[in-house]
Amino acid sequence: METEWIEKLRSRAGSELLGDDAAVLGDTIITVDMLTEGIDFLLGQVDPEWIGRKALAVNLSDIAAMGGIPTFIVVAVALPKPAGIQLAEQLYNGMEPLIRKYSLTLAGGDTNTWNNGLVISITVLGRVTPQGVLRRNGGKAGDRVLVTGLLGGSILEHQFLFEPRIFEALYLNEHFDIHAAIDISDGFSLDLHRLSVESGLGATLYEKSVPISPAAVQLSRQTGQTPLEHALSDGEDFELLLAMPPGEAEKLLVLQPLRERFNVTLYPVAELTSELGLRFTDGTVFLPQGFEH
Amino acid sequence: METEWIEKLRSRAGSELLGDDAAVLGDTIITVDMLTEGIDFLLGQVDPEWIGRKALAVNLSDIAAMGGIPTFIVVAVALPKPAGIQLAEQLYNGMEPLIRKYSLTLAGGDTNTWNNGLVISITVLGRVTPQGVLRRNGGKAGDRVLVTGLLGGSILEHQFLFEPRIFEALYLNEHFDIHAAIDISDGFSLDLHRLSVESGLGATLYEKSVPISPAAVQLSRQTGQTPLEHALSDGEDFELLLAMPPGEAEKLLVLQPLRERFNVTLYPVAELTSELGLRFTDGTVFLPQGFEH
Repeated sequence: METEWIEKLRSRAGSELLGDDAAVLGDTIITVDMLTEGIDFLLGQVDPEWIGRKALAVNLSDIAAMGGIPTFIVVAVALPKPAGIQLAEQLYNGMEPLIRKYSLTLAGGDTNTWNNGLVISITVLGRVTPQGVLRRNGGKAGDRVLVTGLLGGSILEHQFLFEPRIFEALYLNEHFDIHAAIDISDGFSLDLHRLSVESGLGATLYEKSVPISPAAVQLSRQTGQTPLEHALSDGEDFELLLAMPPGEAEKLLVLQPLRERFNVTLYPVAELTSELGLRFTDGTVFLPQGFEH
Repeated sequence: METEWIEKLRSRAGSELLGDDAAVLGDTIITVDMLTEGIDFLLGQVDPEWIGRKALAVNLSDIAAMGGIPTFIVVAVALPKPAGIQLAEQLYNGMEPLIRKYSLTLAGGDTNTWNNGLVISITVLGRVTPQGVLRRNGGKAGDRVLVTGLLGGSILEHQFLFEPRIFEALYLNEHFDIHAAIDISDGFSLDLHRLSVESGLGATLYEKSVPISPAAVQLSRQTGQTPLEHALSDGEDFELLLAMPPGEAEKLLVLQPLRERFNVTLYPVAELTSELGLRFTDGTVFLPQGFEH
């Protein structure tokens, strides 16, 4: 759905801005995400602060994928009538730690009440650094793809409490030669596919070294899927996939410069190939899986 | 409701950005408005193109009130499931004439479907001109307040088809000494009150010269309210109130420079006073009326 709409807008608005996690306008980056009750969260079953946090964090993750510095946010909400302003307060409480951590300025808001479900829509602006932005389409054949954390099982909790990889992306973009990046919002294999397609390439998965989260293992006991299948398709990991030359990848895997600074480990998960499509290491083709809007 | 939330955000975010129609960040202006089904429109009773148009136009009106040049927009929608992408298309069709007229760039979007009502949230960025922005708080005692068009009865049709006063505000801000501005979103008397309060002043209404729309007259036949009462309280006129020194007001009322250029007539509607509160010409105090979110 999102794909169709974006394709339509792309063609009709004559815009080249829509092939990345966020749009770049001069030295400004902009992104928007809307979360809706029943689709992105169940209001009765989740602490409203977590919802507010997530609504902001998913946008920050898009800015991170571009290697940008988030600056300003505007927040629009439609609040279900009985809950009203108290819910607004809780949502804001959930955002506040991220606002402080990333020195964001709340630049505007629109608060509505209605007799329907909760909707929260946040637009985040960011600044391009002197290193320029990271895009999806910069990958080269032979590039290694690293990921910034464990994958799968995000639905259990990580989808609400993940840390957007803002500082990590800024550090890597400043000190290393990163060709392309994307954040994993809809599923590792699907977002790997998107990055490789935008780069005009395919990818071979390093299925042995995909870092699998304990939550994926836990979930696999209930679902009958393997932990790897969860890691490949679950979505909402909000880790970054980063494509870079093999030499840079080796350096990063040995030095692990994010570990001391941010307690983040980099793992090798794939290699970009001139052959299109996704393949396992033995050459078997597989289809990307994840959440299609 | 909006008032409380904004006050909260103001105090908690330590932001001075929220006392105007839009926030100013360096040379960028930013504003957001969310429209919700059942509150801002009835989906079955209005052409969806009108809804898309309005969702964009209300934001453009905020940019107009700041004397800014709109540049980029991002659009987030939650679509009721049965309608889906066709509805998205209709919404976009309604926006397109405004996108073309004001040379806007669609810089991003987020499309969601759910089993609830239609929500559309648009963020618009604008540019500050060399003349600087217009604010609510710049009014001086003795300033005359002019309005850019007829008031009242907007609910019949004007609320969807109004023209944001972008070009008018730019022209006036460039060629005349305008002290303060606001757009009439929630009711003429309420927004006049807001402008005067932000300026630390009150206002005397020129009730004889308030320009009353034919729609207000038409509506008054059904409601029993006078046309003037409709003009004072109806809201969603999306005309601009502009405060300026008496000499500038006289010049504008004689020259009517917007008439030839934009087919827009300026009318005198009030005078700012050091005495707080709203008064009729005979000195009687009255309370602002309009739509409180």
